[in-house]
Parts: sequence; C-alpha cells; structure tokens
Amino acid sequence: MRRRWTHDELVAGVLAGDRRALARAISLVENRDPEAEEIVRELYPRTGHAFAIGVTGPPGVGKSSLIGALVRRVRALDLTVGVVSVDPSSPFTQGALLGDRIRLADHFLDPGVFIRSMGTRGHLGGLAEATLQALLLLDAAGRDVVFLETVGTGQSEVEVIGIADVVLLVLMPGSGDSVQALKAGIMEIPDVIAVNKMDHPGARTMVGEVRSVIALEPDPERRPRILLTEALRSEGVDELWGELGRRRDALRDDGRLDERRRRNLRGEVVSVAAARARERIEQALAADPRLGALVEEVQRRETDPLTVVSAILDEVLGGDPGRGAGGP
Amino acid sequence: MRRRWTHDELVAGVLAGDRRALARAISLVENRDPEAEEIVRELYPRTGHAFAIGVTGPPGVGKSSLIGALVRRVRALDLTVGVVSVDPSSPFTQGALLGDRIRLADHFLDPGVFIRSMGTRGHLGGLAEATLQALLLLDAAGRDVVFLETVGTGQSEVEVIGIADVVLLVLMPGSGDSVQALKAGIMEIPDVIAVNKMDHPGARTMVGEVRSVIALEPDPERRPRILLTEALRSEGVDELWGELGRRRDALRDDGRLDERRRRNLRGEVVSVAAARARERIEQALAADPRLGALVEEVQRRETDPLTVVSAILDEVLGGDPGRGAGGP
Repeated sequence: MRRRWTHDELVAGVLAGDRRALARAISLVENRDPEAEEIVRELYPRTGHAFAIGVTGPPGVGKSSLIGALVRRVRALDLTVGVVSVDPSSPFTQGALLGDRIRLADHFLDPGVFIRSMGTRGHLGGLAEATLQALLLLDAAGRDVVFLETVGTGQSEVEVIGIADVVLLVLMPGSGDSVQALKAGIMEIPDVIAVNKMDHPGARTMVGEVRSVIALEPDPERRPRILLTEALRSEGVDELWGELGRRRDALRDDGRLDERRRRNLRGEVVSVAAARARERIEQALAADPRLGALVEEVQRRETDPLTVVSAILDEVLGGDPGRGAGGP
Repeated sequence: MRRRWTHDELVAGVLAGDRRALARAISLVENRDPEAEEIVRELYPRTGHAFAIGVTGPPGVGKSSLIGALVRRVRALDLTVGVVSVDPSSPFTQGALLGDRIRLADHFLDPGVFIRSMGTRGHLGGLAEATLQALLLLDAAGRDVVFLETVGTGQSEVEVIGIADVVLLVLMPGSGDSVQALKAGIMEIPDVIAVNKMDHPGARTMVGEVRSVIALEPDPERRPRILLTEALRSEGVDELWGELGRRRDALRDDGRLDERRRRNLRGEVVSVAAARARERIEQALAADPRLGALVEEVQRRETDPLTVVSAILDEVLGGDPGRGAGGP
C-alpha cells in the first residue's frame, strides 16, 4: 500500500535521508508535480555538499557497469551514493542483460545506494529540469556522491551533465566517432576519460588515439587523464575513483570549482527556462486551432513558416519585439 | 565594391537564380537581418520544388567529399545544386585540407553550384532558422537539389536536417559509436546509409554490423539500403545518387513525402520558435539586473533555481500559468 505523504513529512523525510521519502519526492519530479518544485525550493539551502559526477559516452561502452563498480568503491569508503540515469540504453533504465541486472541488484538492496532512472521520452526538453531536481533532492538527503549518467554527444546530454562538478567520458575500443568528435571540437573535452573493456585487443590503440587528440589541448591543466578500466572485473576502478577525486580537489583548491558551479547553475537556469518555453510553444500549437490552421496554410504555401513562428511567439510570449525592427 | 540591393531587386534576383542576389540574401539570413524574413516571406509561395537531402554522420567520415562527388554527379545530369553546411568540421566551412580545397574549388567556380556554410557558434539555437531560410532561398532560386550537411547525433543536428526530404547517414570503418547509437535507438534510422572509405580493410565488417542493426527494423520499407562508397575516387556515387532518388520517388508515389514534409514543417516551426524563445531568455538574463541578481542569490543558496526560472519566464513569457496550479 502506498503511503500518503504531506509536504512537511516529505521535506523532513528527505532531509533525514529516508529512502521512501526520497523515492516519493523524485516521483513527484518525474510526474512534474508542482509539489516537487515546492519541496526542492524548501530544501535548496541544504544542498551543495554532494560531489556530482557526470558520466557520459556513446551507448554500449559500459557506462552503467563502470558506475556500478565505482559505486562499490565509494560504498567501501562508507560514503553514500545516488545514481540518476537518463540513458535510455542503460541497464539502470531498462534493457539490462541478465548479468547486468544481477550485478546492479546488489546495489538496489543497499540502503546506502539510491538509483533512479529518468524517462527520456515523453517530456522532451524536461530532462535538464528533472535531473537538476533529482540531484538537489539527493544532495539534500545527504548523499555524498551522485552519478549523473547520460548518453551521446548532443545538446540534451550537455544539459543533463551540465550541472556536474566533474565529467567522466567513457569510451571503448571502436569508439572512433567519439575520438573524431573530440578532435573536431564538437565534443567538449571532459575532466577524465576511461577507456573501458581494456581486455579488448584494440584498447591500447584507442588510448593512443585519444592521447594524441588530448595533446592538442594547450593547457596541461585541462588535459584529462586517460585510464584503462574493465568494469566487469572492477579493474582500474580504484585509480579512476582516485582521479575523479583528485580532479575535484584540484578544481576546488584553486577556486575553479566555485566558478564552474556558478557557470553550471546559470546554464541550467537557462536550459530549464528554455525547455519550459518550448513546451509552452508545443502546447499552444496543439491547443489553439488558429495556430493549427496557420500551420496548414504553411503546408499549402499560403503563409510562410516564419510568419507562423511570429504568431506562435506573439501568443506564447505576448508580443515579438524582434519583428519589424529592421528594414532595407 | 559591394552593390546595394533594394528589397525588390533581391527578390527578383533570387527568383531569377542570380548568384549574387542569392549570396546577399543568405548573408542577410546569417546576419539575422529582419529583411531576410521579409524576402523569404515573399518568396515562400515559389518554393517546394527542390529535392532537399540531409547528409549527416560523425566528423571525419568524408561527408563533404561525398557531397562533392554527388554534386559532380548531379551537375552531369544538368541539374543545379545548393549546399548548406552547418558542420564546423567540414571543409565547406573551414579547416579544409589542401586536397579538399582543390577538389571543392571546381564547384566554387561552377555557376550551377551554390555552396554556403553557416557558422554554428555565436547564435546557438538559431541554426534551424538559418538552415530553413537558406533552403527556401535556394529552392526559390530554382536549385534542383539542395544538400544540407550537418554533424553528429544530437538535437541541433535533428533540427538542421529535420527539413530534408531524404536523410543520408555517412559512416566509415571505425564508426562503432554510431552503430551502437542506431542499435540503441538513440540515432534515428536514416533513409540511406553510405559506408565511405570502402578501401579500408574494415569496410565490409562495418557494412555487416550496420546491416545486422538495420535488420531489427521490422518494416522492410523503412530499412535503409547500405552502400559502399569511396568519395575521393567517386566510387559508388552513381549508385548512391540513384538510391537517393529512388527513395524520394518511393516516398512521393505512396504519399509519404507529403506527410513527411507536413511533419517536417511543423517540427521546424516549433524548433525555430523554441530557439527564438531561448534567445529571448538569454537576452533577458543578460539585460535585466534584477534577474542577474537572482542568479547570484541562487549561487549563494538564498533562492532556488526554479524560482529564478519562473521569474525569467514571467519576464519573457509574461506570466507562468504552470505555477501554483498544483499543491498537496
């Protein structure tokens, strides 16, 4: 039977680190319940202590297994952990192989570990908001370390891990596209790179390729260390954890962590506001028959697309100061 | 010396297919001159004839070279071409190797080919709008075929090629991440796949891997054909061009092209409106000292991030109906 929580009980429960309260509060976040916003608002002054690690990389490289191994390491230090996954291909989310499920199951039973996946379908653009809120709840609940897992190299991924203190990129032998993306400056240089599946014959070659790309970064401070790991046997995981901590400490000691958190927060505020504005636009288009009719006119080439854009913005934003400002 | 164009001269010039008029109009688009919107508005009824081909894929696979080879093929058929590139790693845009420059230079001198790159930095989010407008201008100017080149697998890429009739994904041996992304359903299945650099020993393996992923698509109609190409020697390019045309014809014949164009246009309208809303948010944050002060408060944990988001939306959207709607 599902317990009914009052607002005050939820706030007190999260602050006390109660797992059921945390689970309920994060469900409110996922369901976009306005109550979630009230809870996060009240808890926000109690946040800022968790070490937030963004874990990104292409699908299939073993991000989740590596997070699983890192969680084991962190638990051995008697630190508590939260995992927020927005990777639709992650075993935390779904589609786990039986082996993955068994390995991750250890963590599901450990009260010091709180794992939550966020659906990436449905509320397009709402991911930055959901991730931010879930992180803040876990932070307020006293979780020492929070992993934010995401996939890919796109915009939505940047918004999800944009709030992390330190970013770990996971690659594997064969991740040629990611190496090219780093080289072309399309993917941002992370703080630490793990080349997972180190038993694969191509692992050393991949490390060499990544190293030659990283060497192009002129500031040695910004050059990430590259580590070989084998998540399934927890190899290289102690070193990886050590390196993540060292990066965080180095950033903190010279004031860059504060600066980064400042920039991250500002970026998150913009992302969340932009995602909400986009939703408002989609709602207006679906709900207002006049706008729907305008789109039909665009399809018949009677009205041009930018006129409809302006009409939608007039409706949603209440006037478009950008229009008519210029001229020949 | 730069010629001064009146609005009417520009409209007439673009319609007549005049390259200088086209260049000037696209510059207005890039500079976000409101005049560009007026020109596109006037020309819009004269569009809808160009065959728009989206070309995507990770950096370094040879997308630009392949487009160069396709352009040669299309010119041999006496069709006119436009190329719009928003790939920062593309030789059309910058960073070209000397060899690329020489190969592409042929096209720059051909009046039947119009190549334009769009900066991806600076106006974040404005790419969907710039690409859409450039495509419409080229379409109105009577270009038979327009290639839209973009990079990666992220959100911004989808918005750029979201207006294409047919999407070509270019891969090469070593594109393991992209294969995984297709497998995980994170990258959308394109209409046609070219595995470029076919001389590479891993090319056949890559085709096999891609084929096994594509086989998971239950509808054989939606399964893309996979072709081997070697752009630098124009190998496989005739077949590729043939396949792109066949796809377009098949879509047209059973009415799916109209349906797709309808969906694409609606999606573009949303993307362009959302990008403008995001800009408005960024401007408000930069210009309004009260909002700037609120962000400072967030950093001091005196105000929570979602309160600032609401304040920004109140300012930009004029009221946030989503607030206060719920409660315990």
